Amino acid sequence: MKELNVAILGVTGAVGEEFLSILEQRNFPIARLKLLASGRSAGKWIRFRETEYAIEEAKPNSFEGVDLVLSSAGSAVSRQLAPHVVKAGALMIDNTSAFRMDPDVPLVIPEINPEDIFKHHGVIANPNCSTIIMLVPLFPIYRVAKIGRIVVATYQATSGAGRMAMEELKNQTREVLEGRTPTKKVFPYQIAFNLFSHNSAIKDDGFCEEEIKMMRETRKIFHDDAIRLVATAIRIPILRAHSEALFIECERKISLDEVRQVLREAPGVRLVDDREKNYFPMPIEATGRDEVLVGRLREDPSVENGIALFVSGDQLRKGAALNAIQIAELAFKIKP
Amino acid sequence: MKELNVAILGVTGAVGEEFLSILEQRNFPIARLKLLASGRSAGKWIRFRETEYAIEEAKPNSFEGVDLVLSSAGSAVSRQLAPHVVKAGALMIDNTSAFRMDPDVPLVIPEINPEDIFKHHGVIANPNCSTIIMLVPLFPIYRVAKIGRIVVATYQATSGAGRMAMEELKNQTREVLEGRTPTKKVFPYQIAFNLFSHNSAIKDDGFCEEEIKMMRETRKIFHDDAIRLVATAIRIPILRAHSEALFIECERKISLDEVRQVLREAPGVRLVDDREKNYFPMPIEATGRDEVLVGRLREDPSVENGIALFVSGDQLRKGAALNAIQIAELAFKIKP
Repeated sequence: MKELNVAILGVTGAVGEEFLSILEQRNFPIARLKLLASGRSAGKWIRFRETEYAIEEAKPNSFEGVDLVLSSAGSAVSRQLAPHVVKAGALMIDNTSAFRMDPDVPLVIPEINPEDIFKHHGVIANPNCSTIIMLVPLFPIYRVAKIGRIVVATYQATSGAGRMAMEELKNQTREVLEGRTPTKKVFPYQIAFNLFSHNSAIKDDGFCEEEIKMMRETRKIFHDDAIRLVATAIRIPILRAHSEALFIECERKISLDEVRQVLREAPGVRLVDDREKNYFPMPIEATGRDEVLVGRLREDPSVENGIALFVSGDQLRKGAALNAIQIAELAFKIKP
Repeated sequence: MKELNVAILGVTGAVGEEFLSILEQRNFPIARLKLLASGRSAGKWIRFRETEYAIEEAKPNSFEGVDLVLSSAGSAVSRQLAPHVVKAGALMIDNTSAFRMDPDVPLVIPEINPEDIFKHHGVIANPNCSTIIMLVPLFPIYRVAKIGRIVVATYQATSGAGRMAMEELKNQTREVLEGRTPTKKVFPYQIAFNLFSHNSAIKDDGFCEEEIKMMRETRKIFHDDAIRLVATAIRIPILRAHSEALFIECERKISLDEVRQVLREAPGVRLVDDREKNYFPMPIEATGRDEVLVGRLREDPSVENGIALFVSGDQLRKGAALNAIQIAELAFKIKP
């Protein structure tokens, strides 16, 4: 197998760290590895496969000879550097929201629309984490019974806001337990023993960016402009792995047995649905796993052809780094 | 105003403690106070309005001369003692699920169906906490635009499972932060930095008791057997105050301005809906408050006449003790 020259852009972040860990776990064929970050981190060392790598400052000329750029350094950085990546002939798989809705950029979940990978012009976008965790378990149902409407309420971990946000949850929790006032740096409101509406900008219609991403990206990934979706995105005091309560309306009657059957056979999901033990998807069990956990399957008595479910998925893995690396494996025909 | 002889059944629990605190805050007219609990707690002392009261063991003959029993000692205790309360001529306002669906027992939220109070035969049931927190803000909308369907995902605090459950969250959180294995006593799964499907029994259709309560109680309180509801109930690592993501479908088009207007004028709710500051209902702000906080108002683009909202309410106060005491105030014509 051809070995690739790989650059990781934003290697010091929570997703950057997962890129390294997943590349190692999956024995990704790497010839040369370039670790890029902001000037602040340049000169620090990171270990990967028994070798120490110095972090370099990401610059327009960082991509000469590079085949693959895995990027997760913020939308502004992606927008600034993408033209240079493309000019250098590399493929950028971008985990930010910079290009997701660009009609020239494929937006891909390998279990759903792998064929879109080969339509790229140098950049492939990785969907929003909540979108991925929602759609991987919904697609097998969509494929057999077409979903017309999705209602989703999210239970999102602090990891989605980065490593500092995870630290803030731990620090604030310690402070609250000790009777002190929690220190707020990353989030606008206390996260310890609290929840709040997702900390992304609210648009004119009252939806926040996170919710709008879920609506728009679903249409693009499913190639279905008719699918209707409403989301409420909530941040809760959990470290990593997002959960979502999903209520779907299918275009035909689908039995729970059939739902179970398609979910058991579907790639990327694991059915966790033991009613007797009240054992269903939980974020601590989704953490570190490749699959999205799906369960709490119920026929929704309040609407025709409705199904209710609950899912948990590792926001940093399948919701970010793993999905990007799976795209890279398909793009470069690498067997994981 | 006539002063009442009041007994509190289950005074050592989380709701029992709130009964005392709210009776004191609202200057409830009490002639004699009787504190009842299981034999385990008998003989302990509790302070109320500058006086120490000894806890007595709750027995069939505990209710002689009592006017009002506020009970929250579990369904089995309520079922066992209710006939004795009624025989003694007292009114029992019961916070357990024992009698909620009994056709002879009114199920009351004072802001919604106060007229049902006067149909009692000795027992009035206090609805489930998640039901109360959902319906107080929905009723003003229901009244003007009739709601045909409710989709709800809950974010429930540990307080709903009692005082020991709140302690378990704190203890487990300390253990996790110290790198130790969390000790499980009350909940079947780790609650610290985790969530799980509500820990009530799962029925044949896959819904848990908590979800079924929300469906059935809504129909009874609204006197509307046609209203359709689907719920997913989730326990999250929060101490008290439940939150809920609500998606409603009205029978006519209602603008957000009209929704805001009816919510501003409605009793028992407080509109918290500042899009610019991304400031919406949060459990830490609902804690200790009488009102249910409601916000995140949006027109739901995925369905006709749909509105999405988010609510937080103190599970121990309006979700339990306060609602029961408000019922008592109406039943005995007491001005709060």
